[in-house]
Amino acid sequence: MKAEIIAIGSELLLGQITNTNAKFISLKLAEIGIDVHYQTVVGDNPDRLDEVIEIAMKRADILIFTGGLGPTKDDMTKETIVKHIGTTLVSDDEALLYIQQYFKRSGRVMTENNKKQALVFKGAKVLANRKGMAPGMAVEKDEVRYILLPGPPHEMEPMFTDEAIPYLLGVTGKQEVITSRVLKFYGIGEAELEHRIQSILEKQTNPTVAPLATADAVTLRLTAKAKTTDAALKLIAPIEEEIRLLVGDYIYGTDDDTLASKAAELLIRNGWTLAAAESLTAGLFMAELAGEPGISSSLEGGIVVYNEKSKVEQLGIEQSLLAEYGVVSAECAAALAENVKRTFKSDIGIGLTGAAGPDPHDGKPVGTVWIGITSTDAETETFKLLLSGSRNANRLRAARFALYYLIKHLTTKEGQS
Amino acid sequence: MKAEIIAIGSELLLGQITNTNAKFISLKLAEIGIDVHYQTVVGDNPDRLDEVIEIAMKRADILIFTGGLGPTKDDMTKETIVKHIGTTLVSDDEALLYIQQYFKRSGRVMTENNKKQALVFKGAKVLANRKGMAPGMAVEKDEVRYILLPGPPHEMEPMFTDEAIPYLLGVTGKQEVITSRVLKFYGIGEAELEHRIQSILEKQTNPTVAPLATADAVTLRLTAKAKTTDAALKLIAPIEEEIRLLVGDYIYGTDDDTLASKAAELLIRNGWTLAAAESLTAGLFMAELAGEPGISSSLEGGIVVYNEKSKVEQLGIEQSLLAEYGVVSAECAAALAENVKRTFKSDIGIGLTGAAGPDPHDGKPVGTVWIGITSTDAETETFKLLLSGSRNANRLRAARFALYYLIKHLTTKEGQS
Repeated sequence: MKAEIIAIGSELLLGQITNTNAKFISLKLAEIGIDVHYQTVVGDNPDRLDEVIEIAMKRADILIFTGGLGPTKDDMTKETIVKHIGTTLVSDDEALLYIQQYFKRSGRVMTENNKKQALVFKGAKVLANRKGMAPGMAVEKDEVRYILLPGPPHEMEPMFTDEAIPYLLGVTGKQEVITSRVLKFYGIGEAELEHRIQSILEKQTNPTVAPLATADAVTLRLTAKAKTTDAALKLIAPIEEEIRLLVGDYIYGTDDDTLASKAAELLIRNGWTLAAAESLTAGLFMAELAGEPGISSSLEGGIVVYNEKSKVEQLGIEQSLLAEYGVVSAECAAALAENVKRTFKSDIGIGLTGAAGPDPHDGKPVGTVWIGITSTDAETETFKLLLSGSRNANRLRAARFALYYLIKHLTTKEGQS
Repeated sequence: MKAEIIAIGSELLLGQITNTNAKFISLKLAEIGIDVHYQTVVGDNPDRLDEVIEIAMKRADILIFTGGLGPTKDDMTKETIVKHIGTTLVSDDEALLYIQQYFKRSGRVMTENNKKQALVFKGAKVLANRKGMAPGMAVEKDEVRYILLPGPPHEMEPMFTDEAIPYLLGVTGKQEVITSRVLKFYGIGEAELEHRIQSILEKQTNPTVAPLATADAVTLRLTAKAKTTDAALKLIAPIEEEIRLLVGDYIYGTDDDTLASKAAELLIRNGWTLAAAESLTAGLFMAELAGEPGISSSLEGGIVVYNEKSKVEQLGIEQSLLAEYGVVSAECAAALAENVKRTFKSDIGIGLTGAAGPDPHDGKPVGTVWIGITSTDAETETFKLLLSGSRNANRLRAARFALYYLIKHLTTKEGQS
C-alpha cells in the first residue's frame, strides 16, 4: 500500500503556514506500516488540483487530502474530487445537525454557505469532526482510497487518529499489532538521557526505543510488534524496568500523562488542597493545573504578586526579607509559599519568583528562578533553576518545573501517609 | 514565472521532520513576486525523483530542489537531475578547497565520498554554502531553471537569501516590490467576516485580500505589488479603510500585534495599572499579559479565586450576591472586577467567571462566561460569552476575549482622556 498526502491551500504556497499536517499523517502511517511515497501541496485552484489528482491516482493506492473543506468559495476540494470518483455530493444529516448546534451554542448566526460543509460523497464513510464543523470522509473507487480531512491541525489530528486510522487498518487487514508505551521525562536533556541509556539504545530491536525531544521535555517511545497487544506489552515491560533503574528519577508519568494531569491526580486522590503565589509566571502555574477537570476540589486559588509592592501589601512578605535577600531568592520563594498557604488555609503552598528577562531583575541574572513548596507536616523546600531561554520560554519552564517538583513532593508525601 | 519546490528526503516521508524549507522558500518567493504552484516531497529514490522532475518541468518554469546533496550513497539529487539537463558533473575547485579546509579546521579526516559534494553541473552558477560543505547551484535548460539547495535549514536559508534570490531577481528582471499588511480580528468567525466583506473579496486584484483562520482568530492579509513600497502601501490604504468601515469593530491590531501586546501597549503608554480576579481562567489572563516585556509597571497582579469559598474569603464577594445570581453571572463578574481593583488599588480591574466544562457549573451550561471590566471614572461593563469548545479551549478563549474587551475599553478611555 502506497500513500500520497495532498495538502490543499494557497496559504501553504504563499509560505504563510507550514505543512505540519503532512508530517503528522506521515508519522502515523509509518506506525501502521503504510509507506508514504509523495507529499504534494497545491493551491485553492480546481484545475491544478484536478491534475494533481490525475497524477496521484496512478502512483498511489491511498490519497489523503487535507484542507479545502470549509464554507468559503475558496474551499473546493470536495467539488473537485467528486468528478474523479463519479459520485455526487449529498448533505449528511448528522453533520448538518452538528453544524446547526455549533452555531446555536455559540449564539452566532449560521449563514447559507455553512451548509456546504455538511456535504459528503454519496456512499462515503463519514469521519466525524469533534473539534470543528466540516466532517471528513473516506471512499474507494477503482482500488484507490480517497480520504478527505479538514486543514486546521487541531481538527485534522484527532480525526485522523480516531477515524481514519481504524478505517485504514481495515483496508490493509494487518494481523500484526503495534503497541507503544511512552515514558515522560522532565528535568533531563535529550543528550544526557541518551548517554545514560546508551546500552539500551544500542541493542534495541523489538521493542524499539525512540527518544523524542520537545521544546522543554523528552519522551521515550517503546514500540513493540506482536500478534496481540498483550504480547507486545510483555515485550515492553522488561525494557521499561531497565530504563527505570537507570533514569527513573526523571520519569514523572507515562503515555498521555502531562505534568499538570499527574500533579492533579495526586492532589485529588489524596484530597489535598493547594494555593500558589506567582511572580514571574503571573498565573501560568495555576492556569496549567486548572486545565485538569475535577481540580476545583483541590485548587483553592492563589495570588499573582507581580511587583514588590503587591508582594508586601497583598501577601505580607516582610520588607526586611526583601531588603536582605531580594525578591529573586530562596527566602522570598519560601515566604511566598508559606504566606499563600496560610492566607488560603490550604494543605500545600507554592511560591514562584525569578528573573524571566529580558533584563536582570533585582540584581539576579536572567533565567534565575526560585520555587518554594511548603506542606502541612513537612519542611519548606526550595529549588533553584538557571534557565537560558527567551522571556516566555523561561516563564513556561518555571511553571513546568514547579509542577515537576510538586509531583515529587506529593509522591513522597503520599508514601509517608 | 511559476515555481515548484521539490524536497528530497525519506525522513520527510517518514514524518520524522517537517518540511519547513518549503515554507521558507515559498515566503521568500512571494516577496519577489514569483508564484509557487506546487510543493512536492519525494524520498531518496532516483526513479521516483525522475518522474517528479518529468512532471515538474512541464508545469513550472523554476524548479527548486532541497536535499540530497550530501556525501552518502542515499544522496543522489545531482546524479538524477544531471540526466534531465544533458550536461555532466565536474568538480568545483573552490567548493573542494572549502570542504578540505572544513575538515582541516574541525580536525576530522576527510573520506573519499566527501569529494562528491564538490561536484557541480558543468556551466552552472555555483551557490556558495557558508554553513556547511555541499554547494548549491543554478542552471537553465530549455527555459526551465533548476536550483539545487542543501537540505539542512541552517545551510539552505542563508544560501537561498544571499545567493538564490539575487540569481532569481536577475532571471525575472523584476523591478516590482510586494508589500503586505495584516489586519487582526477577534470575536468574528471566518465565514461571517467573508460574508460581510464579500464585495471587497470579489473585486480584489491589487491589493489581494486573503483571509486566514487560526484556532481562535481570523486575519486578513492585504498584499500589493508596485514599483516601490510606498506606492504599494498607497494601494493598500483605501482598501483597508473600506474594510474598517465594514468590520472595523473586530479589528484589534495590525501586522505583528497580538491581543496581549496591544493591551500592554495601551496600558504602558497611558501609565495605567491593572489587577485581575480570575475564576475559570485561573491565571491565564494575567499570564498572557505578563508575557509582554515592560508590563511590570502596569500589571499589579491579581487573585485566582477558583472556588466559591475563596471568592468570599479572599476577595470579599458577598455571599448574598452569589446566592441570588450565582457565580456565573454578570453580577459576580462585576464584583470580581470591582473588588480586585479596590484590593490592589489599581486603575483598572477585570473579573472572569464561567463554566469551562466538562460539567455545567452552578446551573449554567458549559461555555457560559462572564467578563467584568471596571475602571476609574467609568461604569463597570460586563460581557457574556457562549463558547462551544473543549474545557481548555473555552478557558483560553475566555482569556483572549477579556484581552479583546480590555483593548476596546482602553481605546475608548484613551480617546476620552
